Amino acid sequence: MIHPSAKVGQNVTIKEGVIIGENVTIEDDVYIDYGCIIRDNVYIKKGSFIGAKSILGEYIVDFYKDRINKVNPLVIGENALIRTESVIYGNTVIGDNFQSGHKVTIRENIKIGNNVVVGTLSHIQPKCTIGNYVRMSNNCAIGDGSKINDYVWMFPNVVLANDPTPPSDKFLNVTIDSFAIISASSLILPGVHINEDALVGAGAIVTKDVAKETLVVGAPAKEVCSVRKIKNKFTGESVYPWRYTFKRGMPWKESDYDTWIQSVKFQEK
Amino acid sequence: MIHPSAKVGQNVTIKEGVIIGENVTIEDDVYIDYGCIIRDNVYIKKGSFIGAKSILGEYIVDFYKDRINKVNPLVIGENALIRTESVIYGNTVIGDNFQSGHKVTIRENIKIGNNVVVGTLSHIQPKCTIGNYVRMSNNCAIGDGSKINDYVWMFPNVVLANDPTPPSDKFLNVTIDSFAIISASSLILPGVHINEDALVGAGAIVTKDVAKETLVVGAPAKEVCSVRKIKNKFTGESVYPWRYTFKRGMPWKESDYDTWIQSVKFQEK
Amino acid sequence: MIHPSAKVGQNVTIKEGVIIGENVTIEDDVYIDYGCIIRDNVYIKKGSFIGAKSILGEYIVDFYKDRINKVNPLVIGENALIRTESVIYGNTVIGDNFQSGHKVTIRENIKIGNNVVVGTLSHIQPKCTIGNYVRMSNNCAIGDGSKINDYVWMFPNVVLANDPTPPSDKFLNVTIDSFAIISASSLILPGVHINEDALVGAGAIVTKDVAKETLVVGAPAKEVCSVRKIKNKFTGESVYPWRYTFKRGMPWKESDYDTWIQSVKFQEK
Repeated sequence: MIHPSAKVGQNVTIKEGVIIGENVTIEDDVYIDYGCIIRDNVYIKKGSFIGAKSILGEYIVDFYKDRINKVNPLVIGENALIRTESVIYGNTVIGDNFQSGHKVTIRENIKIGNNVVVGTLSHIQPKCTIGNYVRMSNNCAIGDGSKINDYVWMFPNVVLANDPTPPSDKFLNVTIDSFAIISASSLILPGVHINEDALVGAGAIVTKDVAKETLVVGAPAKEVCSVRKIKNKFTGESVYPWRYTFKRGMPWKESDYDTWIQSVKFQEK
Repeated sequence: MIHPSAKVGQNVTIKEGVIIGENVTIEDDVYIDYGCIIRDNVYIKKGSFIGAKSILGEYIVDFYKDRINKVNPLVIGENALIRTESVIYGNTVIGDNFQSGHKVTIRENIKIGNNVVVGTLSHIQPKCTIGNYVRMSNNCAIGDGSKINDYVWMFPNVVLANDPTPPSDKFLNVTIDSFAIISASSLILPGVHINEDALVGAGAIVTKDVAKETLVVGAPAKEVCSVRKIKNKFTGESVYPWRYTFKRGMPWKESDYDTWIQSVKFQEK
Repeated sequence: MIHPSAKVGQNVTIKEGVIIGENVTIEDDVYIDYGCIIRDNVYIKKGSFIGAKSILGEYIVDFYKDRINKVNPLVIGENALIRTESVIYGNTVIGDNFQSGHKVTIRENIKIGNNVVVGTLSHIQPKCTIGNYVRMSNNCAIGDGSKINDYVWMFPNVVLANDPTPPSDKFLNVTIDSFAIISASSLILPGVHINEDALVGAGAIVTKDVAKETLVVGAPAKEVCSVRKIKNKFTGESVYPWRYTFKRGMPWKESDYDTWIQSVKFQEK
């Protein structure tokens, strides 16, 4: 059931059982797999793949009073790969080359940059800002209003909290600066600021700010050392800041971080 | 595909791809979104909204031997708002004004009171009893037979366990008394009783009973102080017991807890 | 929509809205509930039940470049009971009598033995090997390449990690030996080897190998005692190794472990 107002580009595949609402734009080379629901005012840019049974432009709370869908547009950037049964709300903008696992939930009033990955069953609550090249593994729960800068990594089961005296109406948001790494099953408490290149150890409960390039572990998390002291178990070489030792999927993958950042700076002049 | 035995009230919306089984009652003003499966013997009270692709009256284990659905009724109270892809089993009763996030799982032999909220991806196992005005955030896992009283709050990733010597066949259930608060990512061990107005800190592992109005933190959780000593970070004022400082969505929202409870007691006379 | 190449056995039920791709074999007495997607090259053995809206033979990453499905067969053994909305990838083999909860995700290049149970919302990442009679509760996240031997139990929210210096390209896999028990909300760090009959306490963070028949608890987990010292809270009797005290669903359920293992050894001669 495709609403006649839909604008559908060239070479678009729409499989059986797809519902497409009013004022939807689907650019060229998009593939919408079986049973998706694309609600009103969704814009899907070229080359994107929408996994089976996904729901895009999901109703925000203003729908439920009168069951009339208000205008809450969702934009999905170019070349997205959204896996099955993902739910993405209206009033959200996702950049190019987005990838998701299965069954992710992305709420309203969220801005996601380019080249972001969100793992299976992860859940991003309203009003979050997520930079470019952020990688979030499975089962992460990102509390309302979190601010995650570029090149942040989050591993399975990370929780970002936001209510310092639950239940309350005044939230303190978590901020994570660029290149920081949040290891598996760690919990970041409301209002915590994790600075650039910091590393939060697995299972840590982070109750206060983490300084730049600092490793914290434990519950409550305590400073251990500079991340520069951590060695790779296989090679014995330094690992962090990781931008100098890891390049898979990164914009410096063809050379190295220093060469790439110099070229970026040169282009910016 | 709607079974002819279905009783459907006035002003009911049933979207495309919905399956409705035998002996289903749908009261007035119910909205059933795309692709839901309403199995046999489900009763949906007036004004409820059933999110897309939800499954109500799901088979309990007695179905699988002969693939014949036994009579295991599910009742959904008035004005429910059940978000997409939720699964609710037969032999369960849910009160009025229930709200769920996406992809919740609610098993059989559960009794849920009025005005309860269950967050995205939360999972309530069989034989639980959940009071009125209980608020459960996303990704909570509530073990079999847990007893959660009125006005309890549970934040993301809370786990209530039930097997003291796993694997075994003899469970010890968790009990949480009214107005208690279980903060994010905490784990409550089998048989623990958390008393009224207690506060479990984020990431705590609670191995023994928690006294009334007591804050516990850590792993294993230890008593810190009375909850009355906790101050709001913004205002410096006392926060707990929270019923005196928080009213959003509560029955005392129009006045305050004391005024409301007096009026309730007056009416009860 | 059933592709004409499908081979469908006797007494097969295929409910409304099911999609069946090319080169699919469905043996006798299989039941495929509403809205399932069975992609190409899936083989479902006799007596299996596929829960509503499940997706079998899900695309692996090689699909997305040209949107042509390569040959990545999935085999589901006899008498499976797969609950709703589960996603199982191609290039995976699952043994007989498999049971899953709802919304499980099982990725590619996985080998699962017979009589395995995987709970609701659990997620098994690629290249894992899982033995026979493994029981995994809800919300477990099993990292790439984990090796789980026979009769292992894992309780809710267990995470097996795999990257010792995240982000990296060189993983260290977790190995769990037979009869070990991993309690709720525990986290096993990369490369850890948990030996036979060990018991990991609830909420533990396991940073190094755990010796045979040893109880570890805490974060980081520390040795407490032999599992043989743990008593049942109700009876005061020894509980572990659990194969001598628990038999529900086990191959020795009709007698006891010793009698059964003797008969197995006798048959093997």
